[in-house]
Amino acid sequence: MQLHESNPAPNSRRVHIFMDEKDVEISRVNVDLRAGENLTPEFKAMNPMGRIPVLELDNGRFIAESVAICRYLEELHPSPRLFGNTPESKATIEMWNRRAENNFMMSVAMAFRNISGIFKDREEISAEWGAISARVAADLVPVFDEQLSRNEFLAGDEFSIADITFLVAYEFAGRVQVEVPELPNIDRWLADMKTRSSYSAR
Amino acid sequence: MQLHESNPAPNSRRVHIFMDEKDVEISRVNVDLRAGENLTPEFKAMNPMGRIPVLELDNGRFIAESVAICRYLEELHPSPRLFGNTPESKATIEMWNRRAENNFMMSVAMAFRNISGIFKDREEISAEWGAISARVAADLVPVFDEQLSRNEFLAGDEFSIADITFLVAYEFAGRVQVEVPELPNIDRWLADMKTRSSYSAR
Repeated sequence: MQLHESNPAPNSRRVHIFMDEKDVEISRVNVDLRAGENLTPEFKAMNPMGRIPVLELDNGRFIAESVAICRYLEELHPSPRLFGNTPESKATIEMWNRRAENNFMMSVAMAFRNISGIFKDREEISAEWGAISARVAADLVPVFDEQLSRNEFLAGDEFSIADITFLVAYEFAGRVQVEVPELPNIDRWLADMKTRSSYSAR
Repeated sequence: MQLHESNPAPNSRRVHIFMDEKDVEISRVNVDLRAGENLTPEFKAMNPMGRIPVLELDNGRFIAESVAICRYLEELHPSPRLFGNTPESKATIEMWNRRAENNFMMSVAMAFRNISGIFKDREEISAEWGAISARVAADLVPVFDEQLSRNEFLAGDEFSIADITFLVAYEFAGRVQVEVPELPNIDRWLADMKTRSSYSAR
């Protein structure tokens, strides 16, 4: 297997943390996003969406989308379980992972791309939408703080893919144009996350 | 169990189709979105994101997010498998479900909400972003057509949650402000979808 990725990108970091928690190593191929290597016909044959990361399997097939890659690794290396064990824990982890990704992380990403214009050579942008997305992202943070006031981890008693997604998105938000409120339960959880070896996985 | 939902909403339709494919019945509670019933403190105690559908479990807990609800039902009723059987099929279905949802369906939804202003009493909108999102959604359709030129179903040889997501998003796009191109392989697949009893599930 080979992982096609771009090291500093948030979605690559999600897979790196997941791999470290599973103690899995996969050889890496760097894709230069700024140079548009993800937009070539060769890359789009692997992933027509032109996005990283992409996992190349030994049978020549490709799995794109960071959560799909993580789910594949979960199947091959079930321990520790990061997508849940029971019907309720699997659904709860999926729910919180989606809140962290489809609501929070996507708003952060839209704020970053539309305000910075980092990819304006290849996508239409709207500064107005960037500003709205930054406010939407900031407004969502208290929902996660409230959940973490009643739970050790984002989806309950166990560390999961939902913690990975929210960690990566929250720290990315703090580095781009989102004014992330500092809240006590997130601060406690973030300190816990920083004690894990996976926190610094690259 | 009870399903809190709003019948004509696309995310409710996804769960209805899934339930019909599984031959599962769950009692329903209608939530009036236009009247803001999803924004009350009572509703937000079930789902702090203020969105439908929400599955209320018999133990008093709640599962929000349509795909999380479907995954819970898959665990309780494994046959037929709609999230895959093998590591590779599970990852491939997750990948295509995410392409259908995180790329296509989200662009359709942003086009609809930002152009129509249907929820402008409760969210900031940008007509400029609505127009961009409509173009992004339309530009993605050929990726799905190409995949359906080589596969009977969106994620391969088996009907899956990915077909449900793309079906609901594609038909929703055609009813709102997205100019959906008509392409031959999607047309063939859409005709197949219409032969399933779940197509008209309500």
